[in-house]
Parts: sequence; C-alpha cells; structure tokens
Amino acid sequence: MDKIAGLSEAKGEVTTFENVVLPKILTIAGSDSGGGAGIQADLKSFTALKTYGMSAITAVTSQNTVKVNGVHAIPTDFISSQIHDVVTDIGVDAIKTGMLHSKEVIETVVETLNDLNVKCPIVVDPVMVSTSGHRLLNEDALNMLREKLIPATTIITPNIPEAELIQDGKIGELADMMKIAESLGCKNALIKGGHRPYRDLIGNESIDEALSKMEKLSNVTVVGYGSTAEVLEEYRNAHSGEKSNELVIDVLWESDRKHFTLFVQPYIQSSNTHGTGCTLSAALAAYLGKGMSMSMAVKSAIEFTSLGIESSMPLGSGNGPLNHMHSTKILPLSLPTSTSPAPFTTHLIQSAAEHWDDYIYHPFVKQLADGTLPKESFLHYITQDYVYLVHYARIHSLAGYKSNSFADLEAFANITQHIAKESAMHVEYCNSWGISTSDLLKTVESAHNIAYTRYLTDVGHSGTLLELLVAVASCLLGYGEIGRRLKKSALTGEEFAPGLVCKKENNPYWKWIEDYGSSDFQIAVDEGISTLERKAVEEQPSRERLNHLTDIFTRCCQLESGFWDMGLHKL
Amino acid sequence: MDKIAGLSEAKGEVTTFENVVLPKILTIAGSDSGGGAGIQADLKSFTALKTYGMSAITAVTSQNTVKVNGVHAIPTDFISSQIHDVVTDIGVDAIKTGMLHSKEVIETVVETLNDLNVKCPIVVDPVMVSTSGHRLLNEDALNMLREKLIPATTIITPNIPEAELIQDGKIGELADMMKIAESLGCKNALIKGGHRPYRDLIGNESIDEALSKMEKLSNVTVVGYGSTAEVLEEYRNAHSGEKSNELVIDVLWESDRKHFTLFVQPYIQSSNTHGTGCTLSAALAAYLGKGMSMSMAVKSAIEFTSLGIESSMPLGSGNGPLNHMHSTKILPLSLPTSTSPAPFTTHLIQSAAEHWDDYIYHPFVKQLADGTLPKESFLHYITQDYVYLVHYARIHSLAGYKSNSFADLEAFANITQHIAKESAMHVEYCNSWGISTSDLLKTVESAHNIAYTRYLTDVGHSGTLLELLVAVASCLLGYGEIGRRLKKSALTGEEFAPGLVCKKENNPYWKWIEDYGSSDFQIAVDEGISTLERKAVEEQPSRERLNHLTDIFTRCCQLESGFWDMGLHKL
Repeated sequence: MDKIAGLSEAKGEVTTFENVVLPKILTIAGSDSGGGAGIQADLKSFTALKTYGMSAITAVTSQNTVKVNGVHAIPTDFISSQIHDVVTDIGVDAIKTGMLHSKEVIETVVETLNDLNVKCPIVVDPVMVSTSGHRLLNEDALNMLREKLIPATTIITPNIPEAELIQDGKIGELADMMKIAESLGCKNALIKGGHRPYRDLIGNESIDEALSKMEKLSNVTVVGYGSTAEVLEEYRNAHSGEKSNELVIDVLWESDRKHFTLFVQPYIQSSNTHGTGCTLSAALAAYLGKGMSMSMAVKSAIEFTSLGIESSMPLGSGNGPLNHMHSTKILPLSLPTSTSPAPFTTHLIQSAAEHWDDYIYHPFVKQLADGTLPKESFLHYITQDYVYLVHYARIHSLAGYKSNSFADLEAFANITQHIAKESAMHVEYCNSWGISTSDLLKTVESAHNIAYTRYLTDVGHSGTLLELLVAVASCLLGYGEIGRRLKKSALTGEEFAPGLVCKKENNPYWKWIEDYGSSDFQIAVDEGISTLERKAVEEQPSRERLNHLTDIFTRCCQLESGFWDMGLHKL
Repeated sequence: MDKIAGLSEAKGEVTTFENVVLPKILTIAGSDSGGGAGIQADLKSFTALKTYGMSAITAVTSQNTVKVNGVHAIPTDFISSQIHDVVTDIGVDAIKTGMLHSKEVIETVVETLNDLNVKCPIVVDPVMVSTSGHRLLNEDALNMLREKLIPATTIITPNIPEAELIQDGKIGELADMMKIAESLGCKNALIKGGHRPYRDLIGNESIDEALSKMEKLSNVTVVGYGSTAEVLEEYRNAHSGEKSNELVIDVLWESDRKHFTLFVQPYIQSSNTHGTGCTLSAALAAYLGKGMSMSMAVKSAIEFTSLGIESSMPLGSGNGPLNHMHSTKILPLSLPTSTSPAPFTTHLIQSAAEHWDDYIYHPFVKQLADGTLPKESFLHYITQDYVYLVHYARIHSLAGYKSNSFADLEAFANITQHIAKESAMHVEYCNSWGISTSDLLKTVESAHNIAYTRYLTDVGHSGTLLELLVAVASCLLGYGEIGRRLKKSALTGEEFAPGLVCKKENNPYWKWIEDYGSSDFQIAVDEGISTLERKAVEEQPSRERLNHLTDIFTRCCQLESGFWDMGLHKL
C-alpha cells in the first residue's frame, strides 16, 4: 500500500498515482480535543499508516494533557447512525473501538455491527482504567463487555489492570498473564505489560532464563529479545543516551493456532504517553485492514507505538501525546499527475530559472536567430561541439554501465547512436563551411570544453544514474527548447525574444536551427524527460538529494552559457 | 519542519529525532463520520503536513459521501470549553474554523478566542452554501459572521457563491472577484473560483490577453500561468491523460501590501471533491502555522488541495473524499532512536540472517576456534586474504573519490591505512609460518577471490557511496563479530556455538583471533556502523533502494562464506 507511484509498462509512459484503494478503517471512540488520544490519535495513526480513516464518535470530551474537564455523551441512536452511514456507503476493512462509556453504548455498538453483518477484523481497546488508576466502567458495562462485546471481537488489547478487571483475577507472574490472555474468551488477546516491571513478572529467574525456558515451549514464540549480532548490541550500549535495563513484555494469545507470542522490548522512560493505548489499537486495526497476519500486525503496532513515544516532544504541561508522524516523510516533490506529468524536470528548470534564461536567450543564440553571428564564432563553436559530443556519447555509455536492465541499456545505446548521427551533422556543417574532416579531427579541446565535459564525466562516475541524467539534461532540454522556439518563430513570425523574430531566408544557420527543431530531436527530448521522471519516481529523492540534483542542473546551464561565450569570443 | 532527522556535529554520533516542536493547529468545526470533510479532513491534512492537530467540535454529523443524515449540535459552552482547554495548556500556532452553524456558535467562537487573547493566524472557511447549492446559514448568523468574525479573522476563504452571499453582491467577471475580495472587510481574502468557468470571468478576451493585462498592473501578480519552457508544455500536451482546457482562477487579496495574487491552475475533472474547502483551509492554517508568508501559504494550500483531488480514488457512491496522503511516504526503515541507534545495520543483518549465520558459524571459523584447522587451509586463506586486502583498500580509496567533504575523505584514508596495517599482520603470519614476503607477493588470486573483490569494485563504481559502504560492511562487521565472540568465548568460557568454546592455549590461530577481537578493530566496527547509519539517514532510501541495499549485503555474506570454503578446501 506504501507504493503510491509506479510506472506503466508502456514505453516512456509515466503513470501517476496508482489506483490503490486504501484500506478503510473505522474508529468508534471518544473525541479528545487535545488531539493526543481518542479519535484524534486514531485518525492520525490511520493517516500516518496510509489508510482511510472514518469515525463514529461516542462522546465529545473537553480535555488537554492535564485533565478531562468535560464529557458530552452522544446519544446511542446517533452513535449507531454514524456507524451505519459509513459502513453502508464507504465500507470498512477494519474497526477499532475505544471509549465505550456505558452498558448502553457497548450494546449499541455490538448490535449495530451485528445488524450490518460486519465481517472485518474488530480491535477492542477496553478503555476501563484511567492512567491515574481510576476505574471508568461500572459493573453493568463490564458485564456487557464480557458477555456481548468480547465474543464479537477479533482481538482485545487490555493492559494488565484491565485484564485483571475483566477476568476478575490477579496477574502475578508471566504465566498468569498468559493464562488470563487465553481465558479472556476473545479469539485473540494482547495483554500489554507496560504497567508492570518485568522483574515482577519473572520472579527470581534472570530474564535470559525466563525467556529461554519460554522459547523451548512449542506453543510460545519470543520476539525482540536476544540480539542478532553482538557488534550491534555493543553499538547500542555505546550509543544509547539514557541506559535502562527495564523491559516491557506484551503477551499475544491466538486461539486459532493456540499460540502465545511474547513481545519483549526496552521500556521507554517518557511522560509522553497520553493516547498510547488508542494509538496501539488504531495501528493494529490499520495493519489488520492492510491484510497483515495477527502476529505481524501486533508486532508492527507495538513498534509504531514505541517509536511514537520515543520520538515525542514536549507538548502541554501534563502527559504529552505521542508523535504519530515518526515514520512519515513529506516528499519534497509531487509525484507526476495527469495535469503535471513532469514535476521533476519542471522543478529543475524552475530552480535554475535565471541561468536557464541566460542560456536560452544568450547573445550567441540571438545572433543565430537573425543570422548575424560571425562565421568564425560559429565555426569555433561547431568544432568544439564536435569534440563535446564525443564525451557526451561516452557519458551515455557510462549510463549504460550504470543500468541494470536491457530496456535501459538499449535506450542509452540508442542515445549514443543519435549522438553519433548528430556528430555527422557537424562534419557536414564543417565541410560545407570549408573545414575538412581531417582538420576537424585535429581540433584542440578548449579549456572551457574540458571543464564542461569532465564535469559531466565526474558526476557520472561519482553519483547515481539519476545524477548523470540530470547532468546531461541541460544540453538536451536547452537545445530542444532553442531549436523548437527558433523554428516556430521563423515559421509563425512569433517573437523568440522581445523584438526578435527568427529568420529563415538568408540565415546561414537555418540548417542548424532546423536540425534541433526537427521532430527527431524533439522526440529525444520527450524521451529524455520521461526517463528523468521515471528515475525520479523510483528514487524519490530526499530534500537534500533534490537540492544536490538541482545544483548539478544549474551548474550545467551555466556551463552551457559558457559554451556560447566560448563560441562568441572564440575562447 | 520536514527535517525530522539529523546528525549532531560530534564525530560519528548519530542523533535521532530532532527536538522540533511541531506547529500546533486547532480546527473549530463539525465532525464528518465519513472522514472526508470536517475535523477529519482537517486532522488528516494537519498530519500529512506534519503539524500537531487539535479540535473543538461544533457539531457531530452522521454522514457519508452521499448525504448528511443527522446533525447533533454541541452546546456552545462545550465548544468554548474545548477551545479553552487546548489553548491554555497546549497553545496554538494557527486556527481554522469550518462549520459554525448558528449565530450563537459564531459569537461563542469569537468571544472565546477574544477572551483567550489569541494572536495566531485565524483562517475562516465560511461554510455557508452546500455543494448542492443549499444555503446553510441564516441571516442572523450571516450578520454575526460579517460583523464579529470577519474583523477578527486573518484570512477568509469563500468560494464565489459564498463571497456573493457575504457581500450581497454579484460576481460577473474577474474584476468583480477582485473588488469583492478587497471589500469583504477581512485582512486577507481568498475567493476560490472553482465554481465558475474561467471563461465567464474573462468575458470576450482570450486568457492570454486577460492575464497579461492583469500582470501589467503593479498591484497584481499572476501565479501558475505561462510555462517556463515550451519543451515542458509540449510534454504535458503529449502525456496528459484527459485534456481539458478548463482553468480555475483563485483571487487572493492582501490588505497590508494592497496586493492581489491570481492563482491560475488547470481545472481537474473529478467527482471526488467532498471536503475540498475544509482541506484547503486546513492546509492553509498548517502552512501559516509553520511560518510561511500569506501568498506562499495560499499557493502551497492550493497545490496540496489540487493534488488531493487529482490523486483521489473512488470511495463511497457519492462525492468521494480527497486523498490527503498524496505527498507523504512511509519510511521503510525507522530513523535511529535512543533504544535503537542502528536500525539500518540491524535491518541489513536481519535481512541476511541465514547467510550471516552461515558466514559467522562456518566450519572454517569453528576450526579456528578449537585450533583444528589444517595449517595448509589457513595459509591458503591468509595468502588470498592478503590479495583481498589490496582490493579492499582500493575500494575505500574509491569511497574517498565519491566523497565531498574532508571529514569523509579523512575517514576513508584512515580506513585505507588501517587495511595496510592489517596486511602487515598477514605478512607476519606468513613469515612466522614459513612463507616469505616475496612468495606472498607472488600469490595468484583465486577465482573466488576475484569474484568477491571485483563484485565490490563494481558496486563501488555503479552506485552511491551508501551502496559501496554496504558492500564492504559484510567483511568489517562479520570479522568484528567473529573476533569479538571468539575472544570472549576463550576468556570467559562462554560457548561460541553449541558445544564449542574457543581455545586460547595451544591454539595456533590465537593471534588471528586476538587481532580481530582487539579494541582497535572493534573501534573500526563501531565507526563503520556509525557511518552506515549516518549515510542511511541522509539518503532515506525508498523501499526499492533498501531492497537493493540488503541484496548487496546478503550477496557479500555469501561471498564471505565462499571465502571460508576456498580456505577450507584450498580452492
């Protein structure tokens, strides 16, 4: 589901956003004005995990990180109506419930889902005990939860005090946690151990002993304990900020495969835990809605939540919220869309705007347009450009070396052949202007030419294929733009630059203009843009990489201007 | 704000999540159970734009993409309480209002914000006319909006029908839109033109004429019209799916600089427009909260919304919602945290687990551990490894070539020197085992050695610095792991592998074990991991790139096992 952009198979065609239908996840819970818990935490989690969030609000609260100052309950028929409206029209791939504050609300939710014949996974976060230890559900509601909600639930996610309350039992050690998880009467149960120091759970044994004993049982898997490599463990010891040997043990029971999974992870010391339970159950619903297996979904939800705590920042004066956006990144550049199919190339040209304009509207180009360019300037330019093309072709061969598919290899070989053809054009010009082929071959590369071509080869050697392509794009796109615009100006009378219409008659450089304005060259430009866009979508460069890429493009526009200077002033 | 991970200046120290305090954005609006509009669209937009969302709910609706089936109004004192709770505890950097459904609600919001002395930008989306054209606010409420809300607002964002209603006037052409934007009485006003074909706005003129006339006025800027390059325009013509010449013109008035900005963009044909106004005003509040200038924030919010429409997918049977996650990407790998400072290296080793174990627990290693390895095997191995190290050093020199800072260049030169030192160790072994230095130098590289070293050089040439570092990491980390574990086993009696404790006494290979278990080598391992993590954070590889990187690491683990095979069987 993460793959939101891709490429169609059709040659050169960049598709845009894939028609992925996002999993639709519904939360049935209270609203937390402070944004850290309730439907707010749920919607943030759904969004961060790229699922489509919907909500049925059971109560509106007025609260912040310090306390709940007011609760406005929503009538049960209105709760039912919200669920009904979204399920019947939009549909649902997973549901989570949070604060269901009374017997009546619980009954309404169960009956509504039943009436709607909902078959998707249902995650129940039994919000029963507040962080301060205050009990939130009365005995009637608790019975309703036990008798009607739990049997209709896919997985229930109590913490230890909640599990004890539901089961009316005490959890002393790890074995009790497992026993209670199994006996809650729910298809799957996750008992969260964050409220209990792990040492209280394992008694007199060491954690290694306790867990290796567990691991030997055929119906138990231990996840997250024991390191793959000691070098990593050593690295963690050396680089962890605060050292804590505290661990959290969560227990998952799956009745269908009669299996326990123990998730062991470091305990994170933080006061930013407001909405932890909401976030875990919301992430779990999202992962189940994406089609993950139960144990994988639980593992992922635990990780999502832990990272949320660990990456949180201070907010409010009480228990602050988690950070729900720890693993999302804003793309610095839009993906191609139908109305904007070339966002990367557009960004390159816009970022280099000033230097691009210097290059396109250079005096050399204007003198080509009106035919006033001195012959010696043109000849100096064209002989140097012949040498340039040798290196330009070499760099496309290097692009071939950096490719890993025959499609790309073929495309770059094709460009190399085009460049060879272009060079033949140069030989023709020279011959027709009185320079023999053998004289042309004796051209001594000017310092500016060396600067430009060796800059290109160095970028080609140092970076990725995308960097190489960006470096060669300045020449391709600029010549395409100049050829297209000059030709059009000459044929339509439209100004190329203020006061300047390109001349066709008696313009000694008309052949040059026609060559770069030809459909052959314009097709190469089109294919060049397609390849750039395709590679940019594949790589999805970070902001830093993008800046590096625009720097390369800008530098090449400047080197192109310098190339015109070289021609004009016969440098 | 997008920069959530960075590097401390301290050498080799990878910091984790930056202590960025996210902008806090509050929405005061209705709840849409369907998730497409209201506070749901707002919270999704805030989250997608990496800001912290909070809400004060004015009404809970039961609705879907087809219709609103019920509205449950929240009492005004409870609306006031929600605003009060979040502003006083968490604080607020920008506010947006959506559905304020009555005179009383509008008055409550204005007075509460006034009482709280709120100074941040306030965006008002005057939800007054439904998509179907139905008027949602009565005359009393409208007057309250005109008289109390607008004067307290930073920017109001009506569409054309809403602007007409507020101003009790008619918008015929573009000049009317501008006139009304200026006369709404709000500091800034954005009138959205999506409800009116642009041709109706510009009359008999062509769009070029109309806009270039506008551009000549000193108090007008036109954004989004006219292309930077014709090659891009041509590309768009060739690659846009459905072609539409429809445009949308939005008008921004800023009273402080007495300036109009006209935002021109292609009209996107889509039925997925549920929540467009909510999304635009939410994004605008988020961008203002991030500190953007008004015109830049409006431009960004328009782009965010357009992309949301263009990348939307069918959902429900009515007007579907926008896609709010079009420009967010889920990082395939967590950033380093305090409890997990090496997520990238951990991922590499875990992905290659099977091949990593083959390499670490290879029979060659076990025979080194108990000293039973045949001398000829060791000598074959050590002479080949001497040749290997030449290439290993070459590749670190190539890493230097691929670097762009003296810090990196120095680090790689340092590694190259370490490798040279390691090679001297090899000379010593050989001499002490009866192989002269000149014989050692005559070693003919075995085919397997060529395979491994030339694989490394090829990766080094073809890819980025990160790929090169991943390729050389297998040797560094594996030898570090083996050296550390064997030495520890010998000194503590702990098993290296089941039933196998490393021997120190009478072990002819003890010097080799001590060398790789030495703190010198272990420091190199630590620095290697730091560099890997740092480069991985810089690049933030896409899922595809990450898979490519783990493939390289896995292949190198296999080649390492092959190297032991070569030694053992004297291949």
